[in-house]
Amino acid sequence: MQIPDIAAPDHGLSAALQHKIDQKTKPLGALGRLESLAMQLGLVQQTLTPALHQPVMMVFAADHGIVAAGVSPYPQAVTMQMVMNFLQGGAAINVFARQVGMQIRIVDAGVNHDFAPHPMLLSHKVAMGSRNMLEQAAMSEAECAHAISLGRQLAHAEIANGSNVLAFGEMGIGNTTAAAALMAALCGLPAQDCVGRGTGLDDAGLQRKVAIVDQVLRHHAQHLNSPLAALQHVGGLEIAMMVGAMLGAAEKRAMIIVDGFICTAAMLVASRLAPAVLDYAVFAHCSGEHGHRRLLQALQAQPLLDIGLRLGEGTGAALAYPLLQAAANFMHDMASFESAGVDGKNA
Amino acid sequence: MQIPDIAAPDHGLSAALQHKIDQKTKPLGALGRLESLAMQLGLVQQTLTPALHQPVMMVFAADHGIVAAGVSPYPQAVTMQMVMNFLQGGAAINVFARQVGMQIRIVDAGVNHDFAPHPMLLSHKVAMGSRNMLEQAAMSEAECAHAISLGRQLAHAEIANGSNVLAFGEMGIGNTTAAAALMAALCGLPAQDCVGRGTGLDDAGLQRKVAIVDQVLRHHAQHLNSPLAALQHVGGLEIAMMVGAMLGAAEKRAMIIVDGFICTAAMLVASRLAPAVLDYAVFAHCSGEHGHRRLLQALQAQPLLDIGLRLGEGTGAALAYPLLQAAANFMHDMASFESAGVDGKNA
Repeated sequence: MQIPDIAAPDHGLSAALQHKIDQKTKPLGALGRLESLAMQLGLVQQTLTPALHQPVMMVFAADHGIVAAGVSPYPQAVTMQMVMNFLQGGAAINVFARQVGMQIRIVDAGVNHDFAPHPMLLSHKVAMGSRNMLEQAAMSEAECAHAISLGRQLAHAEIANGSNVLAFGEMGIGNTTAAAALMAALCGLPAQDCVGRGTGLDDAGLQRKVAIVDQVLRHHAQHLNSPLAALQHVGGLEIAMMVGAMLGAAEKRAMIIVDGFICTAAMLVASRLAPAVLDYAVFAHCSGEHGHRRLLQALQAQPLLDIGLRLGEGTGAALAYPLLQAAANFMHDMASFESAGVDGKNA
Repeated sequence: MQIPDIAAPDHGLSAALQHKIDQKTKPLGALGRLESLAMQLGLVQQTLTPALHQPVMMVFAADHGIVAAGVSPYPQAVTMQMVMNFLQGGAAINVFARQVGMQIRIVDAGVNHDFAPHPMLLSHKVAMGSRNMLEQAAMSEAECAHAISLGRQLAHAEIANGSNVLAFGEMGIGNTTAAAALMAALCGLPAQDCVGRGTGLDDAGLQRKVAIVDQVLRHHAQHLNSPLAALQHVGGLEIAMMVGAMLGAAEKRAMIIVDGFICTAAMLVASRLAPAVLDYAVFAHCSGEHGHRRLLQALQAQPLLDIGLRLGEGTGAALAYPLLQAAANFMHDMASFESAGVDGKNA
């Protein structure tokens, strides 16, 4: 498994970018996080006039063998049914992506269903779902490597097609369990700090899920020391493909918008494989899923929104996208003190 | 001064709205704050299919006599210069309003300059600025009443013209001082809890500003018991006109988007005059201005964004607007479990 080489953006433009930001007709720093976003965009794109082109929302879907253990209040068939809902345009992510002008790709990384062809569907099924990680590794080494490699190629294809900003979302009944196990393994945290209610477990369900993740971590303890092995043993097919796509995006200097808990867990894995991937990432929001705030802290990430979303699908990434647009737009279109004839601060 | 009668929205539709929200293809509550926004929109518009029409950003501008005391690092002329910047389309609010499809009105409520006519400019100058409130009331009783009345008429006109959502912004060198004085007076808080750095005072400037607000509060102590008298004595012309416009918007059942510290202070005054105005209000963001978080708490407001903005102009309101659109859009366009053929939670 070859991990792509990801270079941190050259910081040579920092001073010129900061000067441009500071000369806009506003008090110093008055656009808050939009200013640091503008700086990040400028460095990633190596320009004083960053711009976002052809934003793409990639929703990776897969099933999870661990669902057999009763980690979700929804049946596994909901993964397939929600993919159909995406393809029919009726899910939340369809609504929000349309609103903000993002194209959607639904990537079948491993859903336990054979879909008919559809223009929105990218069929890259590695298996009919991951295996039950209480009993064996979620994926074989070859499956995991194949998923990463396909994700990387998918990102490259979008960028070759003209996009410079890829947003990530996911669908997979059971995938908060895999994400929590990855977080616990790679951050060295107890399961209870990482496991949440997912789609809506009650207290008893939550306790059971914590116990299951504990058991999973014990079962695979010998394989959790490397990010790649952890991904293979306690991850999932859509998570592995997202890891590859995130790495592929950063490799080609595209911006990455990370959605919620599962996407952040994928970014955690990616960042352990190639730390500079974080320089290309924007964290859209802090979700209501227990564990997400702590996971964001572990990545020193500053999420843009904090409005109690916990739906996944990429919804938070789509909702945060207008803030990235605003960061690019103020750099392009806003007047400077000089051009507008506005006085600066008194000396 | 007659304050319009504002009725709280009828809550008869609450159960039907909640049912509709809960039947969308997502776990219960998974859209977080967007769900409470959808409920608010439905109740304000008295419909299960809320929609936002012709959003208007009203930026109220005026000058402040208190600037003579040295409360801002920028000269008073910047108010006029920034109005010119707005009219030329080069300010942050122009950029963001364009991005989200809001029309802009610049309302001259009392700028110390005679502007040539301009299609974006609504000239409703009540005076060439407020008076220095260290020495006398910021406005006469008649000026304050006139400003409120004009604001109310302006809101009515926009709504008659087809808008059902008004966003509020402001420009006025010195107006964080007036807003802080209003907050201190009406919330019964010490000046130091309300006064911030505004456009960027240093520590010494901040201390001086606190002392000035303290002095202002002592000078007008006998007139701070009623919200109207407080507004007249320690407010400002753009703040008074915004109070009237907020009341006028709620009177006609339009949504109100409140921007930052100064707009929130105007909403504070409006809510003391007619408490039900809050049912129509959405608080766009918590700004970086000291005092804003506490003021939002005093109003039990849940701001949508918290990204360190402190520019005013309505910028936060424009940036939060896509979240309101998302709330309306998911109610309209998202499939239900039944329509999409997606299984619900296991019993």
